[in-house]
Amino acid sequence: MLAIPLNPNLTRPLYLQIADHITALARAGQLQADQRLPSSRQLAEQLNLHRSTVVTAFDELRARGIIQTLHGSGSYICSGLFDQALQAPKPQALTTPVLANDQLIAELWRLNHAEGMISLALGVPAPDMFPSQRFGQLQQRIARRNPQTAWNYTHPQGFYPLRQAIANDLARHGIQTSAEQLIITNGANEAINLVTQALAVTGDSGLIEEPSFHTTLLNLQQAGIRLNGFAVTHNGPDWASLNAALRTGSSHPRFILVVPDYHNPTGMRWASDQRYQLLNWANQQAIPIIEDATYSDLGLTGPSQPALRAFDPNVIYIGSYSKSLMPGLRIGFIVANGLLQQQLVSLKTITSGSNESFSQQILAEYLHAGEYHEQLAWVTSIYQQRRDALLEAIQCYLPTEVHATIADGGFYSWLHLPADQSIMRLFQRALQRGIVIFPGQAFYLNQANQTHNAIRLCFARYPEDVLTHAVRLLGSCF
Amino acid sequence: MLAIPLNPNLTRPLYLQIADHITALARAGQLQADQRLPSSRQLAEQLNLHRSTVVTAFDELRARGIIQTLHGSGSYICSGLFDQALQAPKPQALTTPVLANDQLIAELWRLNHAEGMISLALGVPAPDMFPSQRFGQLQQRIARRNPQTAWNYTHPQGFYPLRQAIANDLARHGIQTSAEQLIITNGANEAINLVTQALAVTGDSGLIEEPSFHTTLLNLQQAGIRLNGFAVTHNGPDWASLNAALRTGSSHPRFILVVPDYHNPTGMRWASDQRYQLLNWANQQAIPIIEDATYSDLGLTGPSQPALRAFDPNVIYIGSYSKSLMPGLRIGFIVANGLLQQQLVSLKTITSGSNESFSQQILAEYLHAGEYHEQLAWVTSIYQQRRDALLEAIQCYLPTEVHATIADGGFYSWLHLPADQSIMRLFQRALQRGIVIFPGQAFYLNQANQTHNAIRLCFARYPEDVLTHAVRLLGSCF
Repeated sequence: MLAIPLNPNLTRPLYLQIADHITALARAGQLQADQRLPSSRQLAEQLNLHRSTVVTAFDELRARGIIQTLHGSGSYICSGLFDQALQAPKPQALTTPVLANDQLIAELWRLNHAEGMISLALGVPAPDMFPSQRFGQLQQRIARRNPQTAWNYTHPQGFYPLRQAIANDLARHGIQTSAEQLIITNGANEAINLVTQALAVTGDSGLIEEPSFHTTLLNLQQAGIRLNGFAVTHNGPDWASLNAALRTGSSHPRFILVVPDYHNPTGMRWASDQRYQLLNWANQQAIPIIEDATYSDLGLTGPSQPALRAFDPNVIYIGSYSKSLMPGLRIGFIVANGLLQQQLVSLKTITSGSNESFSQQILAEYLHAGEYHEQLAWVTSIYQQRRDALLEAIQCYLPTEVHATIADGGFYSWLHLPADQSIMRLFQRALQRGIVIFPGQAFYLNQANQTHNAIRLCFARYPEDVLTHAVRLLGSCF
Repeated sequence: MLAIPLNPNLTRPLYLQIADHITALARAGQLQADQRLPSSRQLAEQLNLHRSTVVTAFDELRARGIIQTLHGSGSYICSGLFDQALQAPKPQALTTPVLANDQLIAELWRLNHAEGMISLALGVPAPDMFPSQRFGQLQQRIARRNPQTAWNYTHPQGFYPLRQAIANDLARHGIQTSAEQLIITNGANEAINLVTQALAVTGDSGLIEEPSFHTTLLNLQQAGIRLNGFAVTHNGPDWASLNAALRTGSSHPRFILVVPDYHNPTGMRWASDQRYQLLNWANQQAIPIIEDATYSDLGLTGPSQPALRAFDPNVIYIGSYSKSLMPGLRIGFIVANGLLQQQLVSLKTITSGSNESFSQQILAEYLHAGEYHEQLAWVTSIYQQRRDALLEAIQCYLPTEVHATIADGGFYSWLHLPADQSIMRLFQRALQRGIVIFPGQAFYLNQANQTHNAIRLCFARYPEDVLTHAVRLLGSCF
């Protein structure tokens, strides 16, 4: 029996409602090709309508090419057409096929929201440390003051007072810039996407630290950029590795992408002399530098180093408030100059448009009020305690062969595991105990390389006792 | 004299502060290559420091490769290095060079915020009709109820209750879908960017209506997609033109992108039979359909037609709340199935990440409360009056040769002008009178084609009297 919902109160005539519904069922494959429809008499009885209404509906369906009527036999869903509709317009593959890491990250996002799991996998800050109350007050103030404009478009480059506030704040990192050079983006992800799109096209090559943030690797790979990785030591690049990566590429690299402050996943910070050395090296090689400063505000030990951008205004600087303040704002930014800056504003305008407007207005108020620094001082003191608790638990509960980096800042500790330890088996066992960890291969270009036997743990999200509990459970999985 | 600001209260030693500052000046080109520095003795006196501090600073600068000291002659900024720093790492051009339309649109965005101008150019809704007060209430409610999670990441696919609410709402357009098929995007712009990236790579071709939304054209062109345009009549595609466009392309089109409801810039809506015909045509040609429904909720006349997606679940459907509700939300969405849907979630995750979280939560509440329909009924009644006022003013004040389309919905009237009328001269003259109009060539693939002598006017933003005033001033520019 064909269930057709009809609504006599709609302006759309009943015969068209019938025709629409049968068309939709056929297109969706719920009525199959060559399937016989009830007769117009049967359908009229069932729907409690005059038969002429159903006959008109069938006329319409024939006109649409949805049914055909064989004399003396009845009406049938047309064949061919819908087989094609369901099979033919298959989407083409992406530039590069969907990577396995892609699916791993999708699974980690699913598990990030799963009830009862402790996830140390994703880089999520602690929500109980958000300045939510203060932001609530600022929301109300802005809603009262700008009721007409608060929800309108901002300029695609970003809300001007926010750009001013960020430019002022960057002086802390030794950067002299202005609202004019800044572009607000949907987090650092979009910033990296825009900058690398502007600098490189499919087939071009770029240099990147290895390991590196998994999303950045996927982002560049899906754009068809050939990445050459170089190793990093505790203080900065491994120069032999960097020069080897430069020689390996078949074309001159369009950029070098680095994270000098609190690298993801290793948590390391470059020494001062290594920063100057990279600037000189990149200048000599004529390779633009992209400096990803997502974690720069989250130093846990010692005084901060000036940014690369502080010493060379050609460095393209990317920042974010996702980790240092609140991810839900989705506010990242680019500092760039000249023609490149103009190209980036164009790209932002045409590929996505401006960012959400209200959060830009709140963050502008918050930064201008000078409250960000106090917030940073507070959260970094807590993250330092959490880092220490995580490291202590690793020493207590994990095998002695496990070697953890001591993060100078940011969110992560990076654990090297014995070569004979299967990371995916560890991941599965931990999952059974309610613990989510991040398998390290996602941070490498060549995932098959078994020397990369590592996991990343985020210490920012949970209090010390939860971290200790989670690591103890993880220890029982080895 | 070399002005070097020093702060003895910083943890960074004074000799490093000196070295940092000179490095920055040199990198910025404020100290030029081969420029001679003061002697360490002179600088020590000037800065009121012990000479050994300055000597140590110079040692550091030599180690950094910033200065060189010639025996008996003094210290000089190194040559070569900084010339390179300032000149060498020039950004590469975009995939396609920056288009002239790009600059035009940047200028229109600038003028959109300019004091004292009446801009009929951009598609901006009327801010005094925003449900700002109601959104303020919902903001407070969410801030109270979810203080800990309101500002955290949402899932990259979008906030689940929002996806549910949108899926429910789409039944109005005859679409049966679910939260699982939906992906929240940064407006319809990002939706189009993601879908076309997933379906086509550089060098692939696609079919698009001509004229079409300027940003969509730029978006696809910068991705290196070769577009073949086809003409539209009042009711739907010009079939001869569409078949010609299909034959013109050197490769099979990866998609056809259409706006069946209240097309931008023409305001037209496709007739029912033309919709079915396109579905059949695209199925026969095995070309996926992208349906841009940005303006679908803004019908001004007569009952709405079901969406293409209502009759074929293979249609990729794109919607937005920017025009129908408030642009500052930056909430658009995609409805897609199967493998393509998974690829789109991956692409969104790795190229930009989730949308701003708070606005997703507010919109979810607002849609679930069922208030959107009342808001739509109200705004469309007002937009209808504004459209009528604009058309009347056009009849009154513009030359009789000007032919304006009567929009069935949306924001725009599209004015064809006599072939001998220079649009850019009209644009300049109108600007002098404080009126901003949108030159029509930006909506065409071939901008040089002089038959495209048109302008787009947005009637949504201002009340009737302002529209009348603006058109009267425009009339004086011919």
